[in-house]
Order: sequence, then structure tokens, then C-alpha cells
Amino acid sequence: MSKIVVLGAGMVGKAIAIDLSKNHQVTSADIDEKSLKFLSENYPIHTVAVNLMHDEMIQNLVKDYDLVVSAVPGFMGYDVVRTVIEAGKNIVDISFMPEDFMDLNALAARQGVTAITDCGVAPGMPNLIAGYLNEIMEIESLEYVVGGLPQVRKYPFYYKAPFSPVDVIEEYTRPARFVEKGQAMVKPAMSEPELMHFDKVGTLEAFFTDGLRSLLHNLSHIPDMKEKTLRYPGHIHLIQALKTAGFFDKDPITINNTAIRPIDFTSKILINDWKLEPQEPDFTVMRITVKGQMEGKPRTVVYDLYDTWDPVEGLSSMARTTGFTATAHVELILQGKFTGKGVFPLELIGMDPDAYEFVLDYLQKRNVVYTQTDY
Amino acid sequence: MSKIVVLGAGMVGKAIAIDLSKNHQVTSADIDEKSLKFLSENYPIHTVAVNLMHDEMIQNLVKDYDLVVSAVPGFMGYDVVRTVIEAGKNIVDISFMPEDFMDLNALAARQGVTAITDCGVAPGMPNLIAGYLNEIMEIESLEYVVGGLPQVRKYPFYYKAPFSPVDVIEEYTRPARFVEKGQAMVKPAMSEPELMHFDKVGTLEAFFTDGLRSLLHNLSHIPDMKEKTLRYPGHIHLIQALKTAGFFDKDPITINNTAIRPIDFTSKILINDWKLEPQEPDFTVMRITVKGQMEGKPRTVVYDLYDTWDPVEGLSSMARTTGFTATAHVELILQGKFTGKGVFPLELIGMDPDAYEFVLDYLQKRNVVYTQTDY
Repeated sequence: MSKIVVLGAGMVGKAIAIDLSKNHQVTSADIDEKSLKFLSENYPIHTVAVNLMHDEMIQNLVKDYDLVVSAVPGFMGYDVVRTVIEAGKNIVDISFMPEDFMDLNALAARQGVTAITDCGVAPGMPNLIAGYLNEIMEIESLEYVVGGLPQVRKYPFYYKAPFSPVDVIEEYTRPARFVEKGQAMVKPAMSEPELMHFDKVGTLEAFFTDGLRSLLHNLSHIPDMKEKTLRYPGHIHLIQALKTAGFFDKDPITINNTAIRPIDFTSKILINDWKLEPQEPDFTVMRITVKGQMEGKPRTVVYDLYDTWDPVEGLSSMARTTGFTATAHVELILQGKFTGKGVFPLELIGMDPDAYEFVLDYLQKRNVVYTQTDY
Repeated sequence: MSKIVVLGAGMVGKAIAIDLSKNHQVTSADIDEKSLKFLSENYPIHTVAVNLMHDEMIQNLVKDYDLVVSAVPGFMGYDVVRTVIEAGKNIVDISFMPEDFMDLNALAARQGVTAITDCGVAPGMPNLIAGYLNEIMEIESLEYVVGGLPQVRKYPFYYKAPFSPVDVIEEYTRPARFVEKGQAMVKPAMSEPELMHFDKVGTLEAFFTDGLRSLLHNLSHIPDMKEKTLRYPGHIHLIQALKTAGFFDKDPITINNTAIRPIDFTSKILINDWKLEPQEPDFTVMRITVKGQMEGKPRTVVYDLYDTWDPVEGLSSMARTTGFTATAHVELILQGKFTGKGVFPLELIGMDPDAYEFVLDYLQKRNVVYTQTDY
């Protein structure tokens, strides 16, 4: 039993704390007392109300713990990871920060710290799988599509988010990097929409987002890599329209003598419309397709994930699939199965087949099942 | 030559003042000095900077004139017409006020004033035509579709407005009244969209708006009446989505410690996107279909309008078609061809075939041509 602090008690942070509290002594830290109260009243979890925007607060907080999990919003992610590394603590991070976390690699190595980043369902699991396969075959192409969606479509966006609309919109505005015939390419986010069918789900729409991130550097020898996000058809067309009309602009406009950024206002309007309610049924769907040569023969390996919310535990699928990926890697570190010092996205973990097996086994025990099909 | 004051120097108000200034002594009044400067520098038009929200300002202003034209925004329309009637001046109004202008009928009659209301391309011309036809045939159904649109579609709204987005959105939220098989009906605005083809234009989308207004009362014996607005396909789907998501809400939300109505914010975002630029090509398309019995035989009469902007005069089609309808009725009053005292929407003017002929002739001289086809 270890002492773990989970920074952030949002939807995913809660799921992480709950899962870890079954085997460890867990503290959750957040500025929102309501979220903390839910955890302390229902689970054997300590709570600390703290503003995680302040580095010194974090430094002070983490010094009593064996390991830190960061489940803060993306814009706070880099500072939190840096601060925890400086404090000399191992960390597992799911913040999806806009910055390049590899910039912290030297610092982590120097501090003797293990930092596992982008440790969610995606980015995360496709990286782990690509890292694993890369050791046993010559990968020629890697593609994956992924989406977390409500079971029930509500007009007009057909979407619910486990985090702030600002963070979702940020994903829709970052240019999407990918690799085609060995060339590094960039396309606008939301470009090249295509309809795809999924059993149990129906027809979804896939479009470019910037999900490859560290894979672009760490597996740069793969000549074709692309990633797309899945939404119900119609969603991005509305997003695209709002973006073009200026609803996501970051330059303030003046209204009632107050300067307001359109993005902040739009986000405020959408926050209720996009809120995934407790016990609202959701699902996660992902398909990872890897093509290449194994022992001189063409080979295609497909991993499929279809996960749904857990009404008994009261956990959404988005929280389960990302949260349990993070807790699997927490165990990996705590059990001494991964001891590297530095910053490690999951393609660097998956290179070790034992680590890969451990994570998939850990997830399967929680009924998050990746089905592998080989051709 | 008469002395006329035009209240409002927006896009249509300007066109009215310019047209009238060819034969009369015209003054334009508005709060916006830039609009006034354009008129005074380029045309023989006097200008007065004045806040038309204040009744006493209007009373004071109009007393020196023979006739008043009101081209103010809809929300100001009723107060302006009432104030001018109280001042004892004849008035032609194009404000498209939400209130029922017939409430001012007794006042106008008592004051000995002629007030012609809803005197634009639509409402307006379909009313004139219906009033005319109603005297010579037994009308069984009256339908019209109308739209003023930019020649060039700009993503995502494909729309440009000659007035504030707030006023356009207001049109999209008023429930649409119509008559079916003798029954008064109401449907939500924007309901029952249908695609329609128009020569020189292509395919447009027609949907219910609340355009029948005074026709519902004054020609209430017609068993079928409906009106639809035309936009490029896609426009109202985006409007509908914004409406549903709360972007048009009138209850303020708090942001940066300031209470702001979503509708005001949205309007501010759209004002640039929807602005019809000077010399930006636009067109007006309308089709009025009247079916019934004439001398015991079934008869269908169709009026088609297709009008485009005038690059020489620098007038948009929306300004031409509505503005010249108003100036035609100004002449009708000034030349003593219509002498009724009270409030008159155009179906009450069109009952007089001479007035009907006068207006259509006046418009034709300005190249606004209604083509009549009989079956």
C-alpha cells in the first residue's frame, strides 16, 4: 500500500482516485470542494482543497506522497508536471498539455524521476500498442480513430464532454500533424471528415485532430501515421460554422462596456449543453489499425475497443478508459515493473512486452477490453 | 415639391431619401452622423442628428414637414408612428414593428392623418396585390415566398442583412401565423423548410415566418394563406442549432462579473459577418401565387419579382425593393391619389385599382418589375 495524491477531482480524476483507493492510501486535491466532498463521503479518500495553479502549493502538497497523478486541465498540465518533477516525485499525467512534455525529459532524468505522460485512452493506448508492435514487426502504417460519446444524441451538438468546452474547442483548433509517405504533414483540425461504421454504435464521422504528438518523434520511421477523432455526424459541421463566424475568437470584443473573449462566452453557453450528467450513458469507441511486415510477410493488426459506462460504480466510459489506463501505469511504477528515469509517453513503455501485457491485463480486469484481430 | 422628413438613415432609409430628393425637399434624421454625412455630401438632402428614441424630439422635428417616412428599426417602429400621428402628420412606415399597428387606427382617424404601414417589399407588395385581386376574383388561396440575399454565398451563414442581426433573429423567433382550410394556425418560425428552384438564382430554402400580419385580419375570408421566407440552403439549420443551444437566449448570463444577454453577444459576433458591404451584389426574389375563381372559372395568378442591386446608384436590391415601395406610397399621398384617414396596410390601398396601377408603374420606372402570369 502506497501513499498517492491525485491532482484534480474532475470526472477522470475522481475515477482514478476511486480505483487507486481500493489498494492504496489516496488523497484527492482540487479547488472545487463539492467534488472533494463527493469523494470523502463515499470512498476511503482523503481530500485537500487547494489551488493547483500555484506551484508552491503543489510542491508543498506532494512531498508526503510516494507518487503523484495529474488529472488537471490541459492548460495547467505542463506546469504541474514540471513542479512535481522538481519536487522529485514520480508522476503519471493525463492532462493532454499543449506543450511538448519531452522538454522536461532531461530534468526528470536528472531528478531520478519517472514521469509517464499522455497516459489516457488516446493519446495513450495506441502509443502503448504501437510501441509493442514496433518491436515485433516492421510497421508501414499506423492509423487510429477514437471517440467518447453520449449514448443518446441531443440536438444540436450530439456531444457531451467530461471537461470544459474550452479544452474541447482547443482540440478542434490545434493544427493536425500526421505523416504521409514519409513526409511530415499538417492539416487544419477537423479537415477530411469521413463517415465510418461501428458495430453497436452506427455511423460516426472521423476527422483530423492533433493526436499523434510524441509518436511523430519516437516512431518517426513509420512512413504513414494518422489519427482522427470520432463524433456523431453533424457535430463538426456546426463547430466549423461557429469557428468561421468568429465564436471561438480569442481577441476580446466590447459588450456592455466589458471586454470579453468570444471563446469564453461561447464556452459559457456550451458548458450546460455539453455537460455529461452523472449516470448519463456514454461509450468509448476506438479502432487502431497497424499494417506492416512480420517475418517477411504482410500483416495487419487491428485493435478494437468498445466500452460503456458503469452504472454500478457510477463511472462514465470516458472516465473508465482514460482513468484506468492511468492507474495501470501507477501500478506499473509502484510494483517496480517500469523503472526508467525521464519522461515517457506510452510508446516507450509498450516496447517492453511485460509492461504491455501488464497494462492490457489490468484493463481487462476492469472490463476495458481491447480485442485484437490479425490478418 | 413637398417637404419630407425621413426618420432613419440606414440602408433603406438612405435609398428612400435619395429617391425622394429628386422631386422634393428632403431631410434625413438619424443618430448616426456618419450616415447623415454620406447623404449631405452626395445629395441635395438636409440632415439632422437626433435620437429618435425620444418622442419629444420627433414631435419637435416633424412639425415643419408635409409628410414623414419612418425607416427605423422594428423595436422603435410603434412609438415613432404613434408620435407622428399625434403630431398630426401623414406617415409612411417600413419598420416591421412587432406590435399591431391597427391599434393606432382610431387615433389616426381622429387626427385626420393618413398612416401607411408595413410599406415594403414584404410585407407590403403581396398585400397590395392581394387587395387588388380580392376585388376582381374570389381568392381561395394566397401564398408567397420572399428573400433578399447576397449574390455571393459566404460560409457559414450565406446571408447578409440590411439591418441588425437582432432584428433578423427576432423574425426567426416570432411564431408564424397562417390560415389552412379556414382555420387560423400557428407554427414555430423556421418550421416546414422546403427547397424551391428559382431561375437566375438556383435552389433556395423556404420556411415559415410571420409575414402575413394584417392580411390575417383584413382578408380573413381567404381560406388558405401562408408566407415563407427564402434563404440559401443551410442557413436556417445553423440558426436553429444556435437557437437550441441557447445563443439567442434573453436571460443574462454572468461572465467577467458582467450580466450579458446571449442574444446581444451573438448579435455582436454576427454583425460583421452579416454586414452587406457597399456595392456588394445582392438580389431580391419573390413569388406570389393567388388561386381562386374569376367569373366562375378557376384562375391562378402568379407575380414574380427578381431584382438586383444597382451599381450605378450604389443601392442594394433590398434597399430598392422596399425603399421604392415606400416612396411610391409617399407620392400616392402627396398627389392626392389616396386620401383615407386612419392606418392602412397595403391590402387596403390595393383595393383601389388606380392606386395599385400607380404603385406598380412607379416601381417599373425604377426597374423593379413584377411579372404577372395568369393560368
